[in-house]
Amino acid sequence: MPASEFALRRRALERRMADERLDAFVVSFLPNVRYLTGFTGSNGLLVMLPGRAVFLTDPRYRIQAAQEVECPVQVAPGAMLPRVAVLLRRAGSRRIGFERTRTTVDAFDTLRGALPMRSSLEPISGWIEHQRMIKSEPEIAAIQRSVELNSRAFEQAARHVRPGMRESELAAELDYRSRRLGAEAPAFETIVAAGTRTALPHARPTAARLPSNGMILVDMGAMLAGYASDMTRMLFLGRAAPHARRMYAAVLEAQLAAIDAVRPGVKAQAVDRAARRILARHDLDRAFVHSTGHGLGLEIHEPPRVGKKENTLLEPGMVITIEPGVYFEDYGGIRIEDTVVVTANGCNVLTPTSKDLHAI
Amino acid sequence: MPASEFALRRRALERRMADERLDAFVVSFLPNVRYLTGFTGSNGLLVMLPGRAVFLTDPRYRIQAAQEVECPVQVAPGAMLPRVAVLLRRAGSRRIGFERTRTTVDAFDTLRGALPMRSSLEPISGWIEHQRMIKSEPEIAAIQRSVELNSRAFEQAARHVRPGMRESELAAELDYRSRRLGAEAPAFETIVAAGTRTALPHARPTAARLPSNGMILVDMGAMLAGYASDMTRMLFLGRAAPHARRMYAAVLEAQLAAIDAVRPGVKAQAVDRAARRILARHDLDRAFVHSTGHGLGLEIHEPPRVGKKENTLLEPGMVITIEPGVYFEDYGGIRIEDTVVVTANGCNVLTPTSKDLHAI
Repeated sequence: MPASEFALRRRALERRMADERLDAFVVSFLPNVRYLTGFTGSNGLLVMLPGRAVFLTDPRYRIQAAQEVECPVQVAPGAMLPRVAVLLRRAGSRRIGFERTRTTVDAFDTLRGALPMRSSLEPISGWIEHQRMIKSEPEIAAIQRSVELNSRAFEQAARHVRPGMRESELAAELDYRSRRLGAEAPAFETIVAAGTRTALPHARPTAARLPSNGMILVDMGAMLAGYASDMTRMLFLGRAAPHARRMYAAVLEAQLAAIDAVRPGVKAQAVDRAARRILARHDLDRAFVHSTGHGLGLEIHEPPRVGKKENTLLEPGMVITIEPGVYFEDYGGIRIEDTVVVTANGCNVLTPTSKDLHAI
Repeated sequence: MPASEFALRRRALERRMADERLDAFVVSFLPNVRYLTGFTGSNGLLVMLPGRAVFLTDPRYRIQAAQEVECPVQVAPGAMLPRVAVLLRRAGSRRIGFERTRTTVDAFDTLRGALPMRSSLEPISGWIEHQRMIKSEPEIAAIQRSVELNSRAFEQAARHVRPGMRESELAAELDYRSRRLGAEAPAFETIVAAGTRTALPHARPTAARLPSNGMILVDMGAMLAGYASDMTRMLFLGRAAPHARRMYAAVLEAQLAAIDAVRPGVKAQAVDRAARRILARHDLDRAFVHSTGHGLGLEIHEPPRVGKKENTLLEPGMVITIEPGVYFEDYGGIRIEDTVVVTANGCNVLTPTSKDLHAI
């Protein structure tokens, strides 16, 4: 029987542990635990030891863990960390890694207090997140399905957009279509912003009504089989003003230039720069107040960032968003976002939804 | 001008800081930050100092923070903790509290490294959560509105329940109605379980179809103006079997007994015991595998727990759920849940939805 994808991932992590002379690694951040085991519940923890791994959870997940996780499972009725300490003591682990950006001071103190003096807790950060940057074929397929579902939900709901509808009603409609198509949940709080509210990059839908003439920004994503999608589209009610058309064309040009810049071996910052260069040519670069994109997978935001200072070299299998935008407080904002996967010699745009300026 | 509710909350916290000789308190857990300032965004931090408080956030929330927060606001373009350290140094703070169950080792190390040697970081846990247990009149009113919206959404969606509908479709319908009525989001992932899947206390809705004859368990809540609601109801498709009717009657009897036990001065565990005693009389106590309830407010689960070992004395203004349930792996489960507020001499049940055994 071939090793499962999860076993291969754990092996890669074990190699890194060996390189850095770790005897054990306590993995507690849930997306990382899911990545290494397949566990989809809300409480679980993985202890990596040389050549083996033990999964711990609470009694609510006894049946589910047995179905999902191929490592030995321990069900702890109370707190899990004392059980982890027992495991580590029995294994005689000396250098024990923990996730320093995910572990609370309280959890650290509990673990430290239950371990022998001779063992040391080593702060680790980003190892598993680094592994997660390169997606496998099944992961890319899962993201593709999530992206396609998200686009279908958007397109279904877009048909019902009418002036006078509330932002919150359109958001409800988008989420409803997404759930009906099988999404587990929105990947983040769906953004629907109308008129000048499009200028707020993180606008929450309000009770404001859609104008009979003006722009709407929709930014939405789905979680499907644990994988996220993310897309932004503009809708134009009535006739798009010439100024809005010009801005839209400039953002689209920048977005296409950034997509064009995506290929293995280039730094993520070069992709960001490609978008910024086009916007500068249209004198819009100062209105582009965020990064060009971000990685996505088991989380909606994960490495690499596609920002000004990001040195990460793109590699085949990375999945990132490309989403330049421009924002003017008194006028409004325009953002266009696709999800792309880096391939051997460029990238594939996964998002099928049209980017033609679409008037309703 | 009278002090705002937020100012009063901060004053109560300041008194505790003074009692425990803290010079400063770094509050980073978002529900606690919101409780003390009114800030509704996703990134913010409050530094409490004697007689004043400073709120920090990032540039995305500049406008929003100015609108929502009455304390001085500092907008930090990069990491916030170095700015916090500068503030604390300038204030000459020596004993500085931090939330030990909410602060990561990474954040602690960053703060520790940026503070003078003579200052000490004091681990604090539960102070603000303890304050939050007693709700003010406006908070109770906010929870009441959330509870009522949630019940309306349930009742609207319940009218559309039909055999053959998928669990996930009903969940989508429930969430849709809730959003349409103005909820910001579900308070947790809506639970819809049919047939024997009702036996899983944390069932995720699946593509399984509702039976023409059998039980459905719906557990749902809304977030409205930041406050949670939580309700569980059973729906019976076709004719409820005599056994199911008996079980339902027993759980309802237990739930009413627990509600009856709620009054100021009793321990939370006494409420739990009241439910358990009734179920024992029906020989169902071993099938009741969780606690009787939990506090709710800015979070869906917050202190006090209403469990076997909880010593917290109930006080007027506490808002808790009462939700006994029984579960049989091969048969199914039944749970009935209301939200109640402790009053001067008993409690008010906030949930308006009927608990009559309701066949569709």
